[in-house]
Amino acid sequence: MSDTLYTIGLDYGSLSCRGVLAALDGSVAAEAELAYPHGILEHALPDGTKLTGRWYLQHPADYVQALETVVPALLKQSGVSPEQVAGIGVDFTASTVLPVDAAFRPLCLDAAFAGQPHAWCKLWKHHGAAAQAERLTALCREQGVDLALYGGRISPECLAAKVLQVYEEDRAVFDAADAFVEAGDYIVSLLAGKPVISASMAAAKALWSKAGYAGVLGDLPRRCLADRWGVTPLAPGTLAGTLCAPMARRLGLRPGIAVTPAQMDGYTPMAALGICAPGQAMLVIGTSTAFMLLNSERRPVQGVTACLPDTYYPGLWGYASGQASVGDCFQWFADNGLPEDYARAAREAGLTPQAYLSQLAAGLAPGETGLLALDWFNGNKSPLANSRLSGLMLGLTLQTRPEHIFRALLEATAFGARAILEAYEQAGVRVQSLTACGGIAGKNPLMMQIYADVLGKPLRVSRCRQAPALGAAIYAAAAAGHATGFSDIFAAVDAMHCRDFIRYTPDPAAGAVYDALYREYKALSDYFGRGGNDVMERLKI
Amino acid sequence: MSDTLYTIGLDYGSLSCRGVLAALDGSVAAEAELAYPHGILEHALPDGTKLTGRWYLQHPADYVQALETVVPALLKQSGVSPEQVAGIGVDFTASTVLPVDAAFRPLCLDAAFAGQPHAWCKLWKHHGAAAQAERLTALCREQGVDLALYGGRISPECLAAKVLQVYEEDRAVFDAADAFVEAGDYIVSLLAGKPVISASMAAAKALWSKAGYAGVLGDLPRRCLADRWGVTPLAPGTLAGTLCAPMARRLGLRPGIAVTPAQMDGYTPMAALGICAPGQAMLVIGTSTAFMLLNSERRPVQGVTACLPDTYYPGLWGYASGQASVGDCFQWFADNGLPEDYARAAREAGLTPQAYLSQLAAGLAPGETGLLALDWFNGNKSPLANSRLSGLMLGLTLQTRPEHIFRALLEATAFGARAILEAYEQAGVRVQSLTACGGIAGKNPLMMQIYADVLGKPLRVSRCRQAPALGAAIYAAAAAGHATGFSDIFAAVDAMHCRDFIRYTPDPAAGAVYDALYREYKALSDYFGRGGNDVMERLKI
Repeated sequence: MSDTLYTIGLDYGSLSCRGVLAALDGSVAAEAELAYPHGILEHALPDGTKLTGRWYLQHPADYVQALETVVPALLKQSGVSPEQVAGIGVDFTASTVLPVDAAFRPLCLDAAFAGQPHAWCKLWKHHGAAAQAERLTALCREQGVDLALYGGRISPECLAAKVLQVYEEDRAVFDAADAFVEAGDYIVSLLAGKPVISASMAAAKALWSKAGYAGVLGDLPRRCLADRWGVTPLAPGTLAGTLCAPMARRLGLRPGIAVTPAQMDGYTPMAALGICAPGQAMLVIGTSTAFMLLNSERRPVQGVTACLPDTYYPGLWGYASGQASVGDCFQWFADNGLPEDYARAAREAGLTPQAYLSQLAAGLAPGETGLLALDWFNGNKSPLANSRLSGLMLGLTLQTRPEHIFRALLEATAFGARAILEAYEQAGVRVQSLTACGGIAGKNPLMMQIYADVLGKPLRVSRCRQAPALGAAIYAAAAAGHATGFSDIFAAVDAMHCRDFIRYTPDPAAGAVYDALYREYKALSDYFGRGGNDVMERLKI
Repeated sequence: MSDTLYTIGLDYGSLSCRGVLAALDGSVAAEAELAYPHGILEHALPDGTKLTGRWYLQHPADYVQALETVVPALLKQSGVSPEQVAGIGVDFTASTVLPVDAAFRPLCLDAAFAGQPHAWCKLWKHHGAAAQAERLTALCREQGVDLALYGGRISPECLAAKVLQVYEEDRAVFDAADAFVEAGDYIVSLLAGKPVISASMAAAKALWSKAGYAGVLGDLPRRCLADRWGVTPLAPGTLAGTLCAPMARRLGLRPGIAVTPAQMDGYTPMAALGICAPGQAMLVIGTSTAFMLLNSERRPVQGVTACLPDTYYPGLWGYASGQASVGDCFQWFADNGLPEDYARAAREAGLTPQAYLSQLAAGLAPGETGLLALDWFNGNKSPLANSRLSGLMLGLTLQTRPEHIFRALLEATAFGARAILEAYEQAGVRVQSLTACGGIAGKNPLMMQIYADVLGKPLRVSRCRQAPALGAAIYAAAAAGHATGFSDIFAAVDAMHCRDFIRYTPDPAAGAVYDALYREYKALSDYFGRGGNDVMERLKI
């Protein structure tokens, strides 16, 4: 049917951009992906400048290249004509932040700044702004900012801390920057041909509320955020603008279609999975895990990284918690701990290292490894909110094999998820249903059964292959209400969400073993994470 | 000179038997080695019977094959004639225990018992007798046995506990055994053609003293130890008998030459290195570390595994402490944690995995790894005396690389050695000099520099390639005093010890970093090893 309407959703993750072209019944007509050609810059800048210390940078040209590769690929694959595309939506990691000049060009593309690390785009997980985050937190406390909205402290990942770090460590870059923007806002602004700021990102990452930016930021908003351009942040799912003609030409789309503000990449899958009522939780399990929960009211919960009104849906409080390293941690082990004979056996079996390790780990019973790990390889986001914590492996013996360690890492991330679940329940926020999605959740049934057993609750895993991108497409469809007929985001979610789930039921015997192991995890977590012994912070260099 | 005299020393380690032919000035005329063809039996018996749980067994035929391979090789290589060989001495791991029948034949060689794990030779590090050791300890306390001689408790490694385990778990094997003997006594008895029991091993491992076996053992001595044959244990370095004719024929030696009782493999290097005075300590660093110290008097020291008179030399108290996993732990990592690209790079550089990892680790500064490990991969022997403790790795991040982990393991074993050193000093037993030997000490200068820095004392490492075997040859030369002219063991040590050392001086800057890290190690050690959190014992399966 040539008059079927579609929207495009683009999901900018840590390593690639994935896009879908979705019909208004949620069926996906095409999918496309581009891995960022420059990946994550950890050791050197593109010009060869070496990075010392811990950096996680990205190349903003990769984002634009993804736009120009993925969108045409979606149209070509599906045969859908540009006239049938009603809108475009984007989700992005956050805060992934870049400085731009007055022409809205990334500063790092200016040859004068190409060798300055702070001129590049900082990926969300760049934790260099820990000291700045601490000072911002102290300032907020002094000035009575409602820190509970942000989990009681300002995260080093947030835009405000990252910008302050540049101010303090590279004044030349700071002064040359006309503005620092979320990469999601950067892409949407390119689409709309005018500055568009996501209210969701601004509220979660830049101390913004409907009353404006918090005063604690001093000059920063005037110089660097939405205030720079005098625009008001707008909610994802609303119409922020329309696709500008130059960009329409580059993408092969029709100018004037709906453009909606960027949503955070952890948030859009909720729409794709039909999660839109109080008590419904979603775990997006990828390199890290986002644990999100909807509730009708606000309550104080330990270690939530955000508890904000209207960030997912109007009228609901969205709680966000997170685990800073999940898939990252498994990949770290596959990259750094897989012996040669295992690597060879995996190849011979036609399996990825992780799939091979999972196969071996599936042959072990709960508790059989004799190991217990803390999954803090990139710090602990929730409930401890401490990026200076680190990973631990306990119970190692001369009999320990790689699959034992791998299974202990899977289990540790499940314990980490349980610690978050318990923080909600202890605060009186009920978790009535658990839905998981994300690349790893779909690929690893062993891990999901461990999660069901450890969490002690049924768990459904969405088979939706591109939930974040489909969610972005749903936000776009809501914004394009004049064409799609959706009265609001709830109507779009209801019509377009994916109904394909795998269900995991907790095994009581495994659950009993894991209950005991979780008590040990909790004791270690309290000891190392709540002041019993701060050795992890002292060791971290 | 065809009238130069020699003695043979044989060192039975965990994986191989190494022998030397030494002249009376200590110069080594020949060396030879045989790796045990069956290695360590961990997963199956030679007949294919699978082992479930943790076993470390050996094949006694390997010991005899080593005798018949190494001794002729020494003569052949050196061109020394049998007439010039004055004696033969043996050291052995202990307690490495096997049941023999009335014909002194290992029970496991009887087809009826070949499929019974308990009929095989149990290597020292087999820890299956933990429960029996605990009960023996309790019995000793009740009956007033002087447990301080054995470090306050009976080790699961000792002969008495191992025999009791067989009694309780496989009565058929126990009943069929005429005696359970230390493997060292087994070999020396074969040489002498009559039962010879080492007073040193009996005192350290079987609750023997000059007054006889401790009453707490009940029937065991009568049935299974020296009492079985009515022989008195004799000190290494004394003349226990002479080489019997049948064995002389098999080895190509002259019958009637001196045979001296077996010494423990951790003890003989002391003679080889010339350590024979109070305050002198020796670290034998191999798969595990033996930390031995001589003193003129007895004092209570925490976690010593033995504090016995006359075990090394007449008139001196010999203190023994130990680390249960040192080289084992590095090899575990090389076997289980070396990624494919590292393995390939090591091969291309013509290095062993450990040498390659050491090369990379040498490029890191003290403290740079951000890691802290507990080296308890095979439990903690000293000072905690708890085989149920396990290894720990703390500080893991997504940036952790294999060489970081490897260096942290090197450092952890150095911290483990320091914990032993401090236990001595806290007890008022001065450590005036530190000498290291063993395969790993000689091969890994990085590790030895770390030890000097962590221990905060100059450290000399013997270049003596076969210290245990040379020590065994020195004991043999003392026993052959009628031919060699040595009046006692001190005279033999003085004449024959090796004078070739590499010296490591502590670096003050590194020492300061390690002092801080050691405080962290100590805090974790106290927490996990002294009742703060017994999670390691609860996890161990």
